[in-house]
Amino acid sequence: MTTHIPWPVPEPDLPTGTHPALAAAALGAAGAYDRARRRHTRTELAETRGTGADGTPTMLVDEIVEEAIADAARTHGVNLLSEEAGFIDNGSALTLVTDPVDGSANAASGVPLSCFAGVVTDDGRPVEALTCWLDTGRVWRAVAGEPVPYRTSGRTRLDGAAISVLRPGPHARDVWWRVVERAERIRILSTTCLEAVLVAEGSIDAFADVGGDVHRIVDLAAAMLTVPAAGGAVLDAFGRPLEIDPDLSRRWSGIVAATPELAEEIAAAVRG
Amino acid sequence: MTTHIPWPVPEPDLPTGTHPALAAAALGAAGAYDRARRRHTRTELAETRGTGADGTPTMLVDEIVEEAIADAARTHGVNLLSEEAGFIDNGSALTLVTDPVDGSANAASGVPLSCFAGVVTDDGRPVEALTCWLDTGRVWRAVAGEPVPYRTSGRTRLDGAAISVLRPGPHARDVWWRVVERAERIRILSTTCLEAVLVAEGSIDAFADVGGDVHRIVDLAAAMLTVPAAGGAVLDAFGRPLEIDPDLSRRWSGIVAATPELAEEIAAAVRG
Repeated sequence: MTTHIPWPVPEPDLPTGTHPALAAAALGAAGAYDRARRRHTRTELAETRGTGADGTPTMLVDEIVEEAIADAARTHGVNLLSEEAGFIDNGSALTLVTDPVDGSANAASGVPLSCFAGVVTDDGRPVEALTCWLDTGRVWRAVAGEPVPYRTSGRTRLDGAAISVLRPGPHARDVWWRVVERAERIRILSTTCLEAVLVAEGSIDAFADVGGDVHRIVDLAAAMLTVPAAGGAVLDAFGRPLEIDPDLSRRWSGIVAATPELAEEIAAAVRG
Repeated sequence: MTTHIPWPVPEPDLPTGTHPALAAAALGAAGAYDRARRRHTRTELAETRGTGADGTPTMLVDEIVEEAIADAARTHGVNLLSEEAGFIDNGSALTLVTDPVDGSANAASGVPLSCFAGVVTDDGRPVEALTCWLDTGRVWRAVAGEPVPYRTSGRTRLDGAAISVLRPGPHARDVWWRVVERAERIRILSTTCLEAVLVAEGSIDAFADVGGDVHRIVDLAAAMLTVPAAGGAVLDAFGRPLEIDPDLSRRWSGIVAATPELAEEIAAAVRG
C-alpha cells in the first residue's frame, strides 16, 4: 500500500484538569501520528524497526509516536513505561504507563481505529487514565476516586450480549466459538483500548482476549481505572492478578465487561 | 442501555458538485441521526418498529433516518429505493438507491461505525455514489466515468491479506474458517458500506460476506460504483449478477476487493 492516509488527525479534546504529563503525551502522540501519516506511506508506517520491550515487533508508526511521548515524559519529569522502550527512569515517583499506538496495524494501514492510552501512576498506584481515539480526538478520562460521566450497559449475562473480541488464534478455535456463539453481536475492531472505552460508555457489553494471552499490562492499564469507575470490571480470564509491572514480557487474557458478573461469566466460558 | 450516545454527529464534508438530491439525502441523514441520538436512548434507537421492504426488522434509528431521506428525495423530485420503505415513485427517471443507516446495530448502540450510502441511478444506470461515515463526516464520492482521488491496495492474493468479514453464521463455520485462516488480519466492523470504502481507499484489502447471503442490493450499490473506480472489484461469491432491482428480498454474498483477481480468489475460497 504505497499510498498515504489522507485524513488529518485532530487535536485531542482534553478535559480541563487533565494531568499535564498525560495531556502532553496525548497531544504529542496525536501530533506525531498526524505528521507520520503525511510523511510516510501505509507500507512505510508498518515497517518493522526491531523488537520492542514487550517482545513484539515495533512498527515505524509505534516508534514515531513513542518518541513524542518519551519527550513529553522527560519534559514533565515523570518516568515512562511504554511498549517499545520499556521503563525509562526520569527520577520521579510518578510513572506514565502508555500504549503509544493501541491498534498499531490499524494505525499503519489507515483503518481509523487506533488510540493513545495512558495512565499516571504514583508509586505504582494508578491515579489518572486517559484514552484518546486518534482519528476523532474523542477522549475518555478517569481519575481515581472520582465519578466519571459515562456508564456501562449494566449487562450481567453473556447470552445475547454484544461483545468485541480479539481475532481467533490458530490453536484455540473451540474456545473462541464457545464464547462468541453465545453472543448476539460480535465485532473484531483490533484496538483493545478503544474497545475498552466502548464498554465503559455502554456502547458494547464486553471485550475479551478469548484465552489467547495476548495482552500486556500497557493494553489494560487505562481500562483498569476507566471501566470500574463506570460500573464495569477488568480481569484476567485465568484469575491472574493484573499488575503494573515493568516486565513487559508478562501476558494476560484480559476481559473488560459491563459488570463484574459478566466478566466472571466470560472468564468461566473461556476456561470451559 | 438506557443512556444516550453523547457524541455529536458532524455535518458531512460534501465535495463540490455532489448531486443535489444525494447531498440533501446525506445531510438529512446526518441531521436526523444526530437528533435521534439526542432524543432517544440506545435501547429506544434499537426498538423494532416493524418489518422493512427488505424483510428484516426496522429499528427506530432506521425509521427516523429514512424519513429524512424520503423528504430529500421528494423535495428534489427523484424516486427512492430504500431498505425500509422499498420503492417510492416520485415520477422521475432518476432514483436514489440508499441504505439509510448502514450498520444499524452499531448506530443504535453507539459503536461509532455506521454510514449513509446512496447512489443516483438514471433509468437503472448508476451515475453517482456517496458514502458518508456518520460519526466523522468523512465522505467518499464516485461519479460514473470520472477518476476518483483514492486507490485500492492493489493486492491480488488472499494469503496474507487484511480482510474484513461479516460475523460467522451459525451454519457455515467451515466456510468462514476456510476464508479467514488464509488472511493475515481479520476484522468484523459490522458496517458493509464503510468496510467497502476502506477497501476503495486502500486501508484494507477486501471485505466479504462469506457465503451468508446477507447482502441486499442497497448494501452494495454504492460500492459497485466506488470500488471499481479505485481499481477494485465487487461481485457475488456465487457468480450471480449484481442488479439494482426494486425487489429488496433478493440476496447476495458480496465480495469487495482491491483487485478483480483477489475478488475471484475469495469467491473461489467461499465456494470451496
